Amino acid sequence: MGAGIIVIGNEVLSGKVTDINSTWLMAQFHDLGMPVERVSIIPDDIAVIAEEVRRFSGQFDVVLTTGGVGPTHDDVTFAAIAQSFDKELVANAELEAIIREHIPAGSASGYLRMAKLPEGTHLLYNPGLPFPVTRVENVYVMPGEPTVLRKKFLAIRETFRQAPFVVNRAFLRVDEGEIAERLDRLQSKHPQVEIGSYPVYDNHNYKVQVTFEAKNEVWVESAFHEFLQEFRPEDIWKTE
Amino acid sequence: MGAGIIVIGNEVLSGKVTDINSTWLMAQFHDLGMPVERVSIIPDDIAVIAEEVRRFSGQFDVVLTTGGVGPTHDDVTFAAIAQSFDKELVANAELEAIIREHIPAGSASGYLRMAKLPEGTHLLYNPGLPFPVTRVENVYVMPGEPTVLRKKFLAIRETFRQAPFVVNRAFLRVDEGEIAERLDRLQSKHPQVEIGSYPVYDNHNYKVQVTFEAKNEVWVESAFHEFLQEFRPEDIWKTE
Repeated sequence: MGAGIIVIGNEVLSGKVTDINSTWLMAQFHDLGMPVERVSIIPDDIAVIAEEVRRFSGQFDVVLTTGGVGPTHDDVTFAAIAQSFDKELVANAELEAIIREHIPAGSASGYLRMAKLPEGTHLLYNPGLPFPVTRVENVYVMPGEPTVLRKKFLAIRETFRQAPFVVNRAFLRVDEGEIAERLDRLQSKHPQVEIGSYPVYDNHNYKVQVTFEAKNEVWVESAFHEFLQEFRPEDIWKTE
Repeated sequence: MGAGIIVIGNEVLSGKVTDINSTWLMAQFHDLGMPVERVSIIPDDIAVIAEEVRRFSGQFDVVLTTGGVGPTHDDVTFAAIAQSFDKELVANAELEAIIREHIPAGSASGYLRMAKLPEGTHLLYNPGLPFPVTRVENVYVMPGEPTVLRKKFLAIRETFRQAPFVVNRAFLRVDEGEIAERLDRLQSKHPQVEIGSYPVYDNHNYKVQVTFEAKNEVWVESAFHEFLQEFRPEDIWKTE
């Protein structure tokens, strides 16, 4: 069933901060052979987050949230996830100890609220990371700050690995409209292969990229070979 | 109630194509004073698109979709939107005539399927654009190709304009944990002002950006002034 990603933050929806996390995570999951089924960008609103996490958790194998885990009033992700799963938000002594160890005493009190987690939260430790990754049920709760997010995701990425996707691509010098009917026929004949067609309007080398993708290499090669036979060599800029 | 954006495309979810449209649209809507309440990235799947469009259309004033409007088998946005509103998908004679006029005869047949629209679709004409913008109920249906999307959005953007947002920002040299309790108090005292706090870990000039935002300038200035009074001048890198 794949993965769902929930990006939490008013600052993203208002254009103040560009979300580079979801783009990076989608590429990571694809490399891992794990399909991403949906990405949702939602505000720092407890009720909205709680509902979205509940919905995603039931629909997808793995859910990953980013943002809303800092020490300030607009960081409400854990409170919302507690609601999603009908759990209490309680001070986690283990995480409190880690915060006291790593944060200067002067600002520790502000950060201690970050140690209030939904009951039953798993703390996943990884070499080289001072703070553990947190998981509640099938929901991995990540920070929004991109450098920390990446470190934390890379530390656990192998747990998501599936059989890899095989992708073949053709970059063509023909109009997308000319190949629409051929692609229709080919998609009906090879329903196991996902065929995508992506026109570009600002490229002098090609007009449309056609992709063939599946987890079975033989299926992909067979459909791709059949597709390429219908073109004159000069219509194909390149294949990969 | 604001706007919702639905990004349609397997190529985005699989990381093949980076979605630069939603980022651009969020900034556009913010400039126009229109809050974006939610962004959803979903696959080229008729049932999924139909459900999401129905949900967004009921929840938000304005819905904007991007992607899935080309001539190939994976372009199913209009078929899905027809389902969302329980309408028939019918050939639109007006749009057919425009396609025949602008597309070379050789590839026109492939593009003619782009003229099948849900009954009651509005075609919005704009100077300088050969193709009209399409609207079904409160849903603006946009292409995924960024250059065309931008031209089409810019042609209709003034229809979305509301009273502007006022945003004040402070870039501080203190730790986010140190100001958490102060922000809590301030947010309780000024509930009409949205206060946001965004730490950065790779910047030598400041450690946290705090934003104050509302549609009323007096509210923003008052909360912002009160906030700044609590800092020593050397803790403030800059304000804007």
